[in-house]
Amino acid sequence: MPSIDYCVVLSHTSHPGNIGACARAAKTMGITDLRLVNPVDFKNETAYARSSGAEDLLHHANVYATLDAALFDCHFTIAMSARSRHTPYPATLCASQLPTYIRENIQPGQRVGLVFGNETNGLDNSEIAQCHLQVVVPTNPKFSSLNLASCVQIIAFLVQQHPNSTPQKYTRCEAASHEKINALVATISHHVFSKPSPKSTLDMAKFQQILFRLRPSNDEIDFLHGICKRLLKSHL
Amino acid sequence: MPSIDYCVVLSHTSHPGNIGACARAAKTMGITDLRLVNPVDFKNETAYARSSGAEDLLHHANVYATLDAALFDCHFTIAMSARSRHTPYPATLCASQLPTYIRENIQPGQRVGLVFGNETNGLDNSEIAQCHLQVVVPTNPKFSSLNLASCVQIIAFLVQQHPNSTPQKYTRCEAASHEKINALVATISHHVFSKPSPKSTLDMAKFQQILFRLRPSNDEIDFLHGICKRLLKSHL
Repeated sequence: MPSIDYCVVLSHTSHPGNIGACARAAKTMGITDLRLVNPVDFKNETAYARSSGAEDLLHHANVYATLDAALFDCHFTIAMSARSRHTPYPATLCASQLPTYIRENIQPGQRVGLVFGNETNGLDNSEIAQCHLQVVVPTNPKFSSLNLASCVQIIAFLVQQHPNSTPQKYTRCEAASHEKINALVATISHHVFSKPSPKSTLDMAKFQQILFRLRPSNDEIDFLHGICKRLLKSHL
Repeated sequence: MPSIDYCVVLSHTSHPGNIGACARAAKTMGITDLRLVNPVDFKNETAYARSSGAEDLLHHANVYATLDAALFDCHFTIAMSARSRHTPYPATLCASQLPTYIRENIQPGQRVGLVFGNETNGLDNSEIAQCHLQVVVPTNPKFSSLNLASCVQIIAFLVQQHPNSTPQKYTRCEAASHEKINALVATISHHVFSKPSPKSTLDMAKFQQILFRLRPSNDEIDFLHGICKRLLKSHL
């Protein structure tokens, strides 16, 4: 039986030592796919020393210019946050609920991106909006200085398949990838929100989030594409 | 109502930086009672730098000669281990079961010692035998190099009293009624599936089911209606 494939995606990480420590944290929990969005130079001694044996993850880490590019093949994406943001989307979950959420919502064989922001500022709102779900790791209100690698460690621990988990409920197959969903968003956008404006940007993000929440299959995205085409043609 | 009082007990820690990082990890999760059994010298710059603002824990940490002494006022004690030991006592639990165990077994007002061993060897059998419970943090069998502070971070996170132990449902309100959803289906149907056929009946049912699964709000149905209208107009 295939398991869920996780990747750790670090956005705009500013310290090479933290990238190394995140690689170590991920690998101890069995996650070996490390992706870096616009990182500091990390192919150096500091990073390799802190990885403490997880050099292979640093060596094979792919670097991307944008978060969207890094998530291209993901079926589900989770933005981590140390505090709840007042963003309209996506839905927010407490980290303690993550194991249950995954058990009930993510199928084996799917690829899930775990997205972590910059050490100082975390993920910005537009990065969070690109994800299906926001997960908040609750911290001491008087001392919320959660280390980046510690956050990766908690989340990587939580998403592990623990042997005593109850069977999964979901049986839908072939979840559409991030890229495939965004292609439909782009099509709609081209015809509906053709003039860029703050309102149309918000509307597009809203439409994308509705699709994310739906968690469509490949077939369903094709089907919705078909409906769009026929709506466009119906007045010709 | 009194909460459970946790203390983090580090036995024979050999790197001052790790003591600092453990202080930080504990404090982010609201644990401020740090106890050290026969530690390396930790009142130095390395430890304070890695504590990253949790200097107060280092400053107030009590040092003990033995684990027994450090646990003197605890009502319940938990020994952490990266791998399951073949010791007859105490009972062993997977870390993922810890929140439930605590909820069901530890009363508010009790003091609980969370005990962590040396970086290289962990806790020895006699230290584990002094605790009520052994908790194993499962790691990658091929890479079990869990950092000490990362282990403290996972456990301190897990024992936190999360206010919302019951799943936080999505906070969307005003779920669209059956009727309202079906009005959108009818609109699409009118333009897309205008000629009745077995195929179009199936397609309509499929579209309806996709909307049902989405569980949209009234606002979202209005929004999707708007997109349809604009798709229809975009080629006029």
